[in-house]
Amino acid sequence: MASEHRLTTTLRDLLNQQRTAALGTVGANGTPFVSLVPYAVDTRQRCLVIHVSGLAAHTGNLRREPRVSLLVSENAAANGPVHALPRVTLEATAELLAPGTAEALACRAVYLQRFPEAEPMTELGDFRFARLLVHAARQVAGFGAARSLDREEVRSALGPTP
Amino acid sequence: MASEHRLTTTLRDLLNQQRTAALGTVGANGTPFVSLVPYAVDTRQRCLVIHVSGLAAHTGNLRREPRVSLLVSENAAANGPVHALPRVTLEATAELLAPGTAEALACRAVYLQRFPEAEPMTELGDFRFARLLVHAARQVAGFGAARSLDREEVRSALGPTP
Repeated sequence: MASEHRLTTTLRDLLNQQRTAALGTVGANGTPFVSLVPYAVDTRQRCLVIHVSGLAAHTGNLRREPRVSLLVSENAAANGPVHALPRVTLEATAELLAPGTAEALACRAVYLQRFPEAEPMTELGDFRFARLLVHAARQVAGFGAARSLDREEVRSALGPTP
Repeated sequence: MASEHRLTTTLRDLLNQQRTAALGTVGANGTPFVSLVPYAVDTRQRCLVIHVSGLAAHTGNLRREPRVSLLVSENAAANGPVHALPRVTLEATAELLAPGTAEALACRAVYLQRFPEAEPMTELGDFRFARLLVHAARQVAGFGAARSLDREEVRSALGPTP
């Protein structure tokens, strides 16, 4: 149990220290598409928040198929080993929010707290906020240290530091 | 043309300097799955080489659906901006190689040149080498600097430095 608790802390730290994820969506032809997305952690709603352009391929994909995958990984040190990098794959459902709604404004506040430099982009008409509701995760904390997390375990890592 | 040439050089440098990619595959239920893979560039065959475990979810996925997506991105500097990070999404077909074949041995040589520390893993029976044959790419070189590349343009970036 102590070990599970430590892994949850490790996961919380990873999600809070990293600022970008590799977002996997599925295209109309059934093929996967991976793109880079800056994300913020909404510790109140216990979800991730992204800000996407209506012109981007991933946005069209997640409108059609909201089930997505996100990889968040530590960066390798220059010339350091890469095979056991701490990382997590999150299984999530994307919820695109209509502009001006209470939910969108709440996401905007969370997102701009992490990325104040993105404020001009929030004034562009074709951008939308989306919540990523995480159902499950696969965490790799090092060589031979992998575990699967259910929804409640992930929610614990997405919440505020206890 | 000079600008296109410069972008190809930028892409070659990115693929040679980074050592891990976010691999997007599609699961049996049609949902995307993103995982971290170390990769090497085979400049002779002009493809990427990965080394995957038969026990890993992505390996089962690419056996069923060999069309994959790979994101390779520069790392953000600590506290540096993340919205315009140079990156590329590659559209590829994965070809799993039977152990002991000439193709697998050639991939092994290319992979171990980059990752000599992975040699013990190549002795494990459930690992396979796979080639990723790239058909197209979407390169983001900075804000407003995105372009699509066809197969020949990507092959140019995967080849040796001219």
